[in-house]
Amino acid sequence: MKALIVSANMFEDSEFLIPYYRLLEEKIETDIASIKAGTITGKHGYKVVAALSLNQIDPSSYDLVILPGGKAPSALRKNEKMLTLIRQFFEKGIAVAAICHGPQILVSAGVLSGRKATCYKSVAEELKDAGCHYSDQKVVVDGNLITSRIPADLPEFMREIIKKTKI
Amino acid sequence: MKALIVSANMFEDSEFLIPYYRLLEEKIETDIASIKAGTITGKHGYKVVAALSLNQIDPSSYDLVILPGGKAPSALRKNEKMLTLIRQFFEKGIAVAAICHGPQILVSAGVLSGRKATCYKSVAEELKDAGCHYSDQKVVVDGNLITSRIPADLPEFMREIIKKTKI
Repeated sequence: MKALIVSANMFEDSEFLIPYYRLLEEKIETDIASIKAGTITGKHGYKVVAALSLNQIDPSSYDLVILPGGKAPSALRKNEKMLTLIRQFFEKGIAVAAICHGPQILVSAGVLSGRKATCYKSVAEELKDAGCHYSDQKVVVDGNLITSRIPADLPEFMREIIKKTKI
Repeated sequence: MKALIVSANMFEDSEFLIPYYRLLEEKIETDIASIKAGTITGKHGYKVVAALSLNQIDPSSYDLVILPGGKAPSALRKNEKMLTLIRQFFEKGIAVAAICHGPQILVSAGVLSGRKATCYKSVAEELKDAGCHYSDQKVVVDGNLITSRIPADLPEFMREIIKKTKI
């Protein structure tokens, strides 16, 4: 079991740190990637080091990918390499968990048509326009895809993510 | 199983939010208390609502107490009601978990003599002066007492806390 968190500057700190520390609690090896390798800073000022750039990601290496929210997804969704990776993760059936604005990346990658998901309130229309069956729930699980809305959903989000690591 | 988190303004956000959401993930009922009931704000700007004041805490109601770090402990350790509560938790053998500057409250309550514990580096001398067997480890467990040093220790801190909830 190996996990990957992909984010960028202005991530929502709790949506990054809580999954990250939770996976380490489970002793799951967890890589951090961003557009470029180096330090990224959250909206609340927490700093984390992305050891990998997007170009260094081997999509076959991971069993679980987490996409935190904040403003990071609006940068990541414009990155073609990011979108290619997302399509590869979906093709391989790798578990992908996105919270808050994280699902915006999935919209841009074109992987949500016909899928069930949730997201931050203001992103809901985008999901529907992408052919996604949106619902306003704390967590939505549809096969390999796990989505949540806001930091307060993190307990339910993590409960479902951890289940995927036990399969 | 019922848990209590006691903190105050200027808490270290990750040391509050990560235990809080982790306990909720486990479906453990978790109360939040502060010097007065109401909203408290972390060093990084996260806000949480303390439904209880220290005077409203019934120490017999809890199986686990968490003391996050940051600057909150320096206010809490000056509060006589807080110190009385800590002594009651220790007398009852309730699990007490403190991280970073959190153990300062235990020093002021006089409960660390002869006990094994860790804490934030700059607090170590205080622990030793209080007769505590300090060691520089990610987590130290001594009976009912669980202590850690810094946010990066949260995976190990939470692993030991969750074990206590399963006993």
